[in-house]
Amino acid sequence: MKHSFAIGIDIGGTNTDLGLVRSDGSCLGYNSFRTSDFVRTNDYIDRLCSAITDLLNSNGNPAINGIGIGAPNGNYLTGSIGEAPNLPVLSNLPIKEILERRIGTTVAVSNDANAAAVGEMVYGGAKALQDFVTITLGTGVGSGIVIDRRLLLGTTGDAGEIGHSILVPEGRICSCGRQGCLEEYASARGICKTFVELRNAKGYLNGMLNSISDERLSPKMIAEAAQQGDELSIETYEKTGYYLGLACANVVAYLAPQKIFLMGGPTQAGSLLMNPTQQSFEKHLLSIYKGHVQIELTHLKANDAAILGAAALLEC
Amino acid sequence: MKHSFAIGIDIGGTNTDLGLVRSDGSCLGYNSFRTSDFVRTNDYIDRLCSAITDLLNSNGNPAINGIGIGAPNGNYLTGSIGEAPNLPVLSNLPIKEILERRIGTTVAVSNDANAAAVGEMVYGGAKALQDFVTITLGTGVGSGIVIDRRLLLGTTGDAGEIGHSILVPEGRICSCGRQGCLEEYASARGICKTFVELRNAKGYLNGMLNSISDERLSPKMIAEAAQQGDELSIETYEKTGYYLGLACANVVAYLAPQKIFLMGGPTQAGSLLMNPTQQSFEKHLLSIYKGHVQIELTHLKANDAAILGAAALLEC
Repeated sequence: MKHSFAIGIDIGGTNTDLGLVRSDGSCLGYNSFRTSDFVRTNDYIDRLCSAITDLLNSNGNPAINGIGIGAPNGNYLTGSIGEAPNLPVLSNLPIKEILERRIGTTVAVSNDANAAAVGEMVYGGAKALQDFVTITLGTGVGSGIVIDRRLLLGTTGDAGEIGHSILVPEGRICSCGRQGCLEEYASARGICKTFVELRNAKGYLNGMLNSISDERLSPKMIAEAAQQGDELSIETYEKTGYYLGLACANVVAYLAPQKIFLMGGPTQAGSLLMNPTQQSFEKHLLSIYKGHVQIELTHLKANDAAILGAAALLEC
Repeated sequence: MKHSFAIGIDIGGTNTDLGLVRSDGSCLGYNSFRTSDFVRTNDYIDRLCSAITDLLNSNGNPAINGIGIGAPNGNYLTGSIGEAPNLPVLSNLPIKEILERRIGTTVAVSNDANAAAVGEMVYGGAKALQDFVTITLGTGVGSGIVIDRRLLLGTTGDAGEIGHSILVPEGRICSCGRQGCLEEYASARGICKTFVELRNAKGYLNGMLNSISDERLSPKMIAEAAQQGDELSIETYEKTGYYLGLACANVVAYLAPQKIFLMGGPTQAGSLLMNPTQQSFEKHLLSIYKGHVQIELTHLKANDAAILGAAALLEC
């Protein structure tokens, strides 16, 4: 029997966030604890189980369809979290199997970017779409590909790593050890790198961010400076949009989706990022696709998006 | 009722080739005429219908499942050939509807690269695969994406234009009017361009192809010179493999298929092309995919591949 509730869990390197999600996409209750407090896997699992129980208890113990989990390197096919260099306590953890045994309900696991795509499908702007792609800009660049309303998993369960498609051959060194990945141009880190490159190439001029060292820069800081007219900052977002729009045009050449949704922290720069992205997209789009594919911002609220995405995994 | 035979038709700018295909992938009979002899669409259609009838008559008039057609810009969703600048006589032609009325059998249409993918699935090396990609090197670079044994069509019916993904931002001018498409690096034209670039940059040295003007070069000529030790020619195939391997690594980051099949004229260079492609692929592949995805040459014989692909469209 299908119930009206599910639990969504977003596991991050700093925090683990839980939410009780109703089938209309509203969050009825939240719980949260620090992932980084734990060094032993068993302790983490114990804490996670008590957080789930507390969340249910404090909301009248509704029957739930199950628990969806979004985690770095979470794999839908295996139900495990894979190698997670930044999350040793969770690395190679068969979390689906463990939680199903401990809680006695269905558990679905995926990486956070895939969960975001499913969240968009179940609760967001893709409710009525068959084929779409989501690209999440954050510490890295994640993505999820949905074809015929099914999440594309590929042979390994790891399809949809568009952030690690190579956009610029022999380009910037990426955290993955290769060069030129989209991630190095469109993630928070990529945006800061672009700013630093411009600042080094053009000199500091009268830049508003002159006093900020390379290490302390953030996309938010650069966006605020751009909104106040700082030239290097404006140019930074123009270049970021150039790369992102080009990547979106490539997405269309592969998949011809109906829409591409962008989400994540840097998209909060709004038109500062979206206008040059759109321009670059139009410029780089193969003519047969013109007018058929739109780029949009996610319809999910930033605060709930990760939890909704996780909960939506149960609908996969 | 399912019969043992189908007709496959490969429509090219020069020739229209027909074959009677048995369900085991053998071709029992052929027919052919020159596409380029025709300037009026009705005349072309009349000739095509008589070629179909002749092919059936000369093979004992077996019952057939239908007719599959591979044509430039053929669209499976619409059943039409789209804008075809090199084939004005066929441009914007609803060929499925017309032939179904004239011949009284099921007709399926697609572009030649998508047909090649379906051919690999039904008759070739992908009989037992769920997810794979084919890349056809020729005048251009075409591709077909198969997911869960279904051809990926996308919202427009035109998904899988990997040849027009941008590999080198602001790179070589492409025939599509944009810059840096894979096609300009891995098609027959792209291979010749690489040779010319190298020759211009390095000087003619003692090159075996010194007496051949840029316009008269062909991938076959360059492959033969490379096999005899010509340095510029060897380097040309190394660079081609570099680009092609990088593109294949990107294919995996998107789709994580089980295999990528390469086909088309330039692949007849064999290890000259495949070795550097494989090296570049390994170098550029994200670590999570290593060991999971293979690049292979097509299992279909070059002469029959296009006809088999067309016939296989009926199994889509």
